[in-house]
Amino acid sequence: MKSFIHDDFLLQSDAAKELYHNHSKKQPIIDYHCHLIPEYIAKDHQFDNLGQIWLEGDHYKWRAMRTNGIDEKYCTGKDTSDWEKYEKWVETVPYTMRNPLYHWTHLELKRAFGVDELLNPSSGKRIYDICTEQLRTKEFSARGLMKKFNVKVVCTTDDPVDSLEHHISLKNEGFEIKVLPTWRPDKAMAVENPAEYRKYVEKLSEVSGVSISNFADLLQALQVRHDFFASVGCKLSDHGIEEFYAEDYTQAEIEAIFNKVYGGQELSQEEILKFKSAMLYEGAVMDWEKGWTQQFHYGAIRNNNSRLFRQLGADTGFDSIGDFTVAKTMSKFLNSLDNNDKLAKTIIYNLNPRDNDLIATMIGNFQDGSVAGKIQFGSGWWFLDQKTGMEAQLNSLSNLGLLSRFVGMLTDSRSFLSYPRHEYFRRILCNLIGNDVEKGLLPKSEMKFLGEMVENISYFNAKKFFNF
Amino acid sequence: MKSFIHDDFLLQSDAAKELYHNHSKKQPIIDYHCHLIPEYIAKDHQFDNLGQIWLEGDHYKWRAMRTNGIDEKYCTGKDTSDWEKYEKWVETVPYTMRNPLYHWTHLELKRAFGVDELLNPSSGKRIYDICTEQLRTKEFSARGLMKKFNVKVVCTTDDPVDSLEHHISLKNEGFEIKVLPTWRPDKAMAVENPAEYRKYVEKLSEVSGVSISNFADLLQALQVRHDFFASVGCKLSDHGIEEFYAEDYTQAEIEAIFNKVYGGQELSQEEILKFKSAMLYEGAVMDWEKGWTQQFHYGAIRNNNSRLFRQLGADTGFDSIGDFTVAKTMSKFLNSLDNNDKLAKTIIYNLNPRDNDLIATMIGNFQDGSVAGKIQFGSGWWFLDQKTGMEAQLNSLSNLGLLSRFVGMLTDSRSFLSYPRHEYFRRILCNLIGNDVEKGLLPKSEMKFLGEMVENISYFNAKKFFNF
Amino acid sequence: MKSFIHDDFLLQSDAAKELYHNHSKKQPIIDYHCHLIPEYIAKDHQFDNLGQIWLEGDHYKWRAMRTNGIDEKYCTGKDTSDWEKYEKWVETVPYTMRNPLYHWTHLELKRAFGVDELLNPSSGKRIYDICTEQLRTKEFSARGLMKKFNVKVVCTTDDPVDSLEHHISLKNEGFEIKVLPTWRPDKAMAVENPAEYRKYVEKLSEVSGVSISNFADLLQALQVRHDFFASVGCKLSDHGIEEFYAEDYTQAEIEAIFNKVYGGQELSQEEILKFKSAMLYEGAVMDWEKGWTQQFHYGAIRNNNSRLFRQLGADTGFDSIGDFTVAKTMSKFLNSLDNNDKLAKTIIYNLNPRDNDLIATMIGNFQDGSVAGKIQFGSGWWFLDQKTGMEAQLNSLSNLGLLSRFVGMLTDSRSFLSYPRHEYFRRILCNLIGNDVEKGLLPKSEMKFLGEMVENISYFNAKKFFNF
Repeated sequence: MKSFIHDDFLLQSDAAKELYHNHSKKQPIIDYHCHLIPEYIAKDHQFDNLGQIWLEGDHYKWRAMRTNGIDEKYCTGKDTSDWEKYEKWVETVPYTMRNPLYHWTHLELKRAFGVDELLNPSSGKRIYDICTEQLRTKEFSARGLMKKFNVKVVCTTDDPVDSLEHHISLKNEGFEIKVLPTWRPDKAMAVENPAEYRKYVEKLSEVSGVSISNFADLLQALQVRHDFFASVGCKLSDHGIEEFYAEDYTQAEIEAIFNKVYGGQELSQEEILKFKSAMLYEGAVMDWEKGWTQQFHYGAIRNNNSRLFRQLGADTGFDSIGDFTVAKTMSKFLNSLDNNDKLAKTIIYNLNPRDNDLIATMIGNFQDGSVAGKIQFGSGWWFLDQKTGMEAQLNSLSNLGLLSRFVGMLTDSRSFLSYPRHEYFRRILCNLIGNDVEKGLLPKSEMKFLGEMVENISYFNAKKFFNF
Repeated sequence: MKSFIHDDFLLQSDAAKELYHNHSKKQPIIDYHCHLIPEYIAKDHQFDNLGQIWLEGDHYKWRAMRTNGIDEKYCTGKDTSDWEKYEKWVETVPYTMRNPLYHWTHLELKRAFGVDELLNPSSGKRIYDICTEQLRTKEFSARGLMKKFNVKVVCTTDDPVDSLEHHISLKNEGFEIKVLPTWRPDKAMAVENPAEYRKYVEKLSEVSGVSISNFADLLQALQVRHDFFASVGCKLSDHGIEEFYAEDYTQAEIEAIFNKVYGGQELSQEEILKFKSAMLYEGAVMDWEKGWTQQFHYGAIRNNNSRLFRQLGADTGFDSIGDFTVAKTMSKFLNSLDNNDKLAKTIIYNLNPRDNDLIATMIGNFQDGSVAGKIQFGSGWWFLDQKTGMEAQLNSLSNLGLLSRFVGMLTDSRSFLSYPRHEYFRRILCNLIGNDVEKGLLPKSEMKFLGEMVENISYFNAKKFFNF
Repeated sequence: MKSFIHDDFLLQSDAAKELYHNHSKKQPIIDYHCHLIPEYIAKDHQFDNLGQIWLEGDHYKWRAMRTNGIDEKYCTGKDTSDWEKYEKWVETVPYTMRNPLYHWTHLELKRAFGVDELLNPSSGKRIYDICTEQLRTKEFSARGLMKKFNVKVVCTTDDPVDSLEHHISLKNEGFEIKVLPTWRPDKAMAVENPAEYRKYVEKLSEVSGVSISNFADLLQALQVRHDFFASVGCKLSDHGIEEFYAEDYTQAEIEAIFNKVYGGQELSQEEILKFKSAMLYEGAVMDWEKGWTQQFHYGAIRNNNSRLFRQLGADTGFDSIGDFTVAKTMSKFLNSLDNNDKLAKTIIYNLNPRDNDLIATMIGNFQDGSVAGKIQFGSGWWFLDQKTGMEAQLNSLSNLGLLSRFVGMLTDSRSFLSYPRHEYFRRILCNLIGNDVEKGLLPKSEMKFLGEMVENISYFNAKKFFNF
């Protein structure tokens, strides 16, 4: 019987096969947005077993397990072994059919470990043993896995106060894969909790060597760190925001707000919005000055479950899709920068697909001809990182912008096993385009151009756009 | 020529055919949410003619007829005969092509009456006669139709003040099909009209035997009725709400609000929201204590047409899809219960499909491993109860949750002829899964598991989930 | 090799081919909503070259070029020749694959000029020469192009103060194609800028001969112009609105607001909303009295880019899709008219496709049986005027209303070359229906009815609905 993950998985036409096999497949991977732990790369971390590499920190799998009626101890439990968790995950796998986890799981088994069997309770132990044995070899270390998947560049996600020691050591060492930091200053605008915020600002003061007693100092300290990030090779910033912030404010107001929160007082909702608006703007100007690309991920509502947040903390699988009204604020924010000729290259990622067409048209307002695809509609992110979500993003972008100029896929992942998601994306991309060719929506005579187009979206557009 | 409603209607692949014919088709029907009139079942109502059973109260058909330029008297007119209305409906039928009414109509003709002809002005009289003749036989009584469609359980929709006399008599009689009440306390929170509300509370006092002079009494009276419903076999509650209500409130506030409205005074918008928030919460706790499943249908805007509302009243085809902002409130409401460990099994139904992905991720926040699929994304409801709507719900649920744990279809219908909608749903479900198999998105080797999965979604998941 | 734009372009089934070739193709065009310059028709304008007719004023192409990294001077530059702009457009064309521009471009080349080659830098000069030569002949004048595409009626878009001199001269001359004005009173409610508004009202006073000193005078002046438009053959009004306006107001309030703005004072947001609500209502009553059809295009956010707005003005490609909350206001507005028995035939066009199902159900609330399809869900507009957008509109309308009663396509275009978009729409329509027939979702035996249905949607429904 044919393998589930066979050569032409997801490729439903001859044109799709040609585009994938002759053009996309061979391109290296630029994973310009991920959450890998730099230390794991620097120290070339070795994983203990399949249960550990798969289930540690993977809130996608935890959510599926909880939905399948699996007790929390097999998801996040401290006293449960990797094997016990794995066993419960395996029990869940068949129940994930039609969920992307079913595809991801088998892609990872095949591509990383060469396992061509379906995972279920009867194959679980055998597969565990095969993969765990391999995981303990050098070929399956953190670096080994990155090389196996032909990765050229990864951009991790880092706080302005981070020492970047691991990035620096990798750079000094001359590691063949670029491991670059990304500037993620979310905490620098998290003024909801004055005490936490003060602690953060003090830390920032310490690492930057700038003594901070007012808003100008804060910006100065951030600038120092921004420069430092640049010196380590940073090319992107990233902002995780509920909504865009574009309140009107005066410098005097922002200074007063900073003093208030730094002095330990709670801010009003209006003050928070003004402060975040200022920070978002100032950070964007820094990015523009450096020629970086700024990323905005918006629209999640987080930590919906208080009971389990108290037990497990953030990022444990209790976030979901919000329904914010965004168009006017997003426009106002981007315009405030463009109007001052300070709009950096930008990527906007939404989480609610109902905004796809909105964003695909919004980016067009700020394309100014200076860079091809200057403002990008980011690839299907988080909950949307599945076939339907990716196709919807690709179709909106195609219909309302230029797909040909798209910088393509990112994993947004914490896992060294997640690179097959680039393959998944590429197959979906080639399949969409291939189907169009088969249906006569794109001319068959243009397969050469289309081949270059998928090569560009797979690799070259990102390489050029980000200046890697 | 092949019948329109042939054996493989909607089934576009061999896998789909196998899944439907060998697995789904033979499962009985659990219609866990409907609006059948219990008296009709208890008295085994016999219908006069095809016009009557089809057009009495069917706002789907009325809307189509009005759109087709048919005068109101043929929809809701008191002085127009069943035949006259039927004739106008028949005139409209061909104009409904691509609307679900076209499919429903011919499925009902074929499955209930064995009529395999298309309905249009030239076949209308013949079909009327054939069906009317059958309707007058015992096999086509209310109960006869339920048996014909292999129904095992129906849950009707009932007000807390309802005597449930027909449910009780059916139970006592030992009728082979379970006819269970559903707790629908919408009127108990309808405080917009103080006079109406007072009348309702007085009625509640009477039937519960609890004298009501304050909010605690109100809850006490509802608790008595809730217990009574349980004693008659109730397993579900249902709430028709515009939006979720999750305002902060104190007990003192709610008591004061109750006194105010009970005293005949109009409430402010804020008071109404607080009161509804309290009622929704208290009712949810009762449901949790009983192990029931609570249902929330939200997002309709009702009675949009004042002129025709004055003439015809509610539920006559003048409701439509709203665009409420829902994520944060829905989250807050569910969390308020979960945070107190009092979140019952829950089904959320949306009416605007733009919220599909939002809900499919929201439910994941409250899956706690205690029950498989504890929080459910309800099947395409009302306007969404058609092929596109069902597929969208099934796809969102699949992508973002576990389709395998879905409790499946309900009719939400007032008609004893509407059971073929379960067939319609099942064919669509099997077709989606079958197409995935044909395209290699699901492994062909897993047809056995997939067969069980469609059996579960068709019947066993609901049976187990609701404890029928 | 087969032509890209071949006979069966977009038609993926035999049924689709039959529906298009035997039924839809031969129908004339009614373009009931466009932005053609009436003077061009009256004077039978001749175009200089392909660059000019394609790039002058075409913000769709400009947006694509800017996204492709093309400098603004090749889009809107005054000192750049038509040829230079054309050359940059040609460079962009291959990069538009999967964007509707790629289809539109080649449809226009084939249908207007008989050019069957793909446009790209290597064919650009040759195609320019061929088309430019033809454009300079009589067959390719403004009128020549309209005749070539079998146009029967066009409705232009005109301000109440417009003299309609060109419409009148075409009427007097007996030009075989009806060129009718459309009443577009947007400026009559643009009270945001008191000085501009006063100028407009003074102009209105002048052309109407009504001296305006209060709100009643304003309505009187508009009524005079409304009557004048009717005398020139106007059958439709059109309103470009961000949102529907349905604030409660009193006559006294509106009179005071008019006096205030006419006196040069800025209005508050609330006053603006009240005034627009009054104007929208009063205009709708005038339309109802005449038996016209009113159109509402809502949901764009305009002029997002201040920097380029200052340079280039409005309608230069810096508008995008908004995300307004609309259901309740739209309902209230339509109901305020229906409740007074003064709701004219109406078409509602949305710009954010997330509202498709909302609108498709909203129109059902106000179908009263007086006219088939009295309230229409308008065809995919502007950004949605592409295959995905059209299909989504057609599917929502089908699922939730009656596709059979749809008045069909409009170009909304400024270009005499845009008529192939009717062909594009018709192919998409026939393909959707044809696919349903092939899949058994519609009965094959009903091809005759379906053939008439596509004829109706292509031509006859509009002809009858608008009384052309």
